Amino acid sequence: MVAENYGKNSIIVDAMGGDHAPGEIIRGCIQASRLLDIKIILIGDEKKIRSFAIQDNLDITNLEILNASQEIEMDESPSEVVRTKRDSSIYLGTKILGEGKAGAFLSAGNTGAVMACALYNARRIEGIQRPAIAVVLPLAEKRVVLIDAGANVDVKPVYLKQFAIMGKAYAETMLSIENPAIGLINVGSEEKKGSEVVVEAYKLLKNSDLNFKGNVEGRDIFEGKVDVAVCDGFVGNILLKAIEGMANLFFTEIKNVFLSNFMTKLVTLGLKKPLSRMKRKFDYEEYGGAYLLGVDGLVIISHGSSRAKAISNAIRVAATGVSMDLVGKIRDEVKIVNKNDRGSEK
Amino acid sequence: MVAENYGKNSIIVDAMGGDHAPGEIIRGCIQASRLLDIKIILIGDEKKIRSFAIQDNLDITNLEILNASQEIEMDESPSEVVRTKRDSSIYLGTKILGEGKAGAFLSAGNTGAVMACALYNARRIEGIQRPAIAVVLPLAEKRVVLIDAGANVDVKPVYLKQFAIMGKAYAETMLSIENPAIGLINVGSEEKKGSEVVVEAYKLLKNSDLNFKGNVEGRDIFEGKVDVAVCDGFVGNILLKAIEGMANLFFTEIKNVFLSNFMTKLVTLGLKKPLSRMKRKFDYEEYGGAYLLGVDGLVIISHGSSRAKAISNAIRVAATGVSMDLVGKIRDEVKIVNKNDRGSEK
Repeated sequence: MVAENYGKNSIIVDAMGGDHAPGEIIRGCIQASRLLDIKIILIGDEKKIRSFAIQDNLDITNLEILNASQEIEMDESPSEVVRTKRDSSIYLGTKILGEGKAGAFLSAGNTGAVMACALYNARRIEGIQRPAIAVVLPLAEKRVVLIDAGANVDVKPVYLKQFAIMGKAYAETMLSIENPAIGLINVGSEEKKGSEVVVEAYKLLKNSDLNFKGNVEGRDIFEGKVDVAVCDGFVGNILLKAIEGMANLFFTEIKNVFLSNFMTKLVTLGLKKPLSRMKRKFDYEEYGGAYLLGVDGLVIISHGSSRAKAISNAIRVAATGVSMDLVGKIRDEVKIVNKNDRGSEK
Repeated sequence: MVAENYGKNSIIVDAMGGDHAPGEIIRGCIQASRLLDIKIILIGDEKKIRSFAIQDNLDITNLEILNASQEIEMDESPSEVVRTKRDSSIYLGTKILGEGKAGAFLSAGNTGAVMACALYNARRIEGIQRPAIAVVLPLAEKRVVLIDAGANVDVKPVYLKQFAIMGKAYAETMLSIENPAIGLINVGSEEKKGSEVVVEAYKLLKNSDLNFKGNVEGRDIFEGKVDVAVCDGFVGNILLKAIEGMANLFFTEIKNVFLSNFMTKLVTLGLKKPLSRMKRKFDYEEYGGAYLLGVDGLVIISHGSSRAKAISNAIRVAATGVSMDLVGKIRDEVKIVNKNDRGSEK
């Protein structure tokens, strides 16, 4: 298939990925198309998409539909997908991205497959060995970038340094934080604390031009001590999901407190608004998607359980990344840090 | 020094460890001695302890004081301590424990030093290669044992299996959970997910007699899917501290919500009690101390920032562990699991 050039101001959305595909994905795209001035291309089984739209009476005239006939399962091995699923939405979508014919690619499907196809089709940014998932942690006072939130379960020290560089570019570009403070997530503040990998990463970060503030413990992340918190994808993913689980737990508890007596029941009305505002801060659906940084093209990964609202928000996230040229900023940042490096890494 | 035999119903408390030693430690011991029918031996610089008691008008007549002249710094290397600080409270305390002359040893000091001295003086339980810190996560519905909460930053697969065995003994003995469900903390539920170490550990656990439920994600821990959640000490420590940080954040936010208007301010009075009850669930001071399991003697580690209340609660934790013979139960459990093992580990 030779795809047309959709231009930079366009986003390819995987219609087939996630627990609620394609229905909720289509709905999310329609919502986003009403809010954003950006071209949305829905990629996937065209017949399925069109029959779904007719059945649910969805107006998809504002969306471009691109056919991709193969389906990918959630547990399929990424390398298999790259080899055997060349007519899947993820493979084709990342291919068009890699050819520079679209501004971004978004999927709520198999994360491993997205990563493998994106790397194969769009390549890495020079100086970055592994892409990483960056998210803004849902926090109170201050916004903190967590990187890697789940792309790499096993890392080398130099990967962690590269994550820090990408996290810096992210915080500067997307959160307008000047010279962001970088922290290495660890079990103690002392330089020699932690696993072997983390101890080595500490040295690399200390010897770089980055605004490195040393180790941060789990507690410190919430106290806003740094703007970027760096860790491997194993720790990051567990941490992120624990935050989700804990937020749910808290709101259940709070509800129980409110319903514990008549007086408090009465007041629930008055608290409903501020509480739901608070709850939104911890709701991944509000954020919708996370960037897979390090690929030479903008890739956004959404939660597998995403519904229309999350997809629509993820498209907004993608559009922001496109308009701010996040990928270009990372490219520049890698060059600057590597040029000024006082480190000894190989 | 040849210490007398204090018998099983006794706890040696390190008077010199932690940010608020010895004052808050002494106070905590006095509080505990009023509540518990157990002998408390305060070990440390006797002159300092006595002058502190006089100065603050503390009645220490119910406590035994044991002199240890050397001090250990928080950043001192554990192996150095074992070699050069043989007259320190941690070294001497664990030595008496190892000689079977006391029921437990408790310290809020340098965790690495406690671990090294305990291993040197009290040895490991046969079949356990590394001791691990076990805590009961402060959760809503259900109590969950997290192991390892910070003793081992780098692990081998077989250590994780041993942590699971100790976690099982803990849940059975201390929480009265029959045949507790064990989960491996991971980034996905599928068998092949995760780091190399975790993938191998999965196999070992699957081939054991343990009630292994597979992988659990960060979210699942809070949803009470398992009774024991196993991970390395790097992940466990970050997770535990993140929970602390997040709890603080939540209560700050909740307070802001309450103070947001007059109506809600009024009601704060009615909510004070249930909220502070909720807050207590997430307060480490309520728990006071965590067991360092795997040592052939009961060792309890307290938070470095412990004050009297935390120390008193930790002594209660220690007394419970003594009366339930937690160490003996772990010894038995290791034998049972290893005997029935269908695994292939070496």
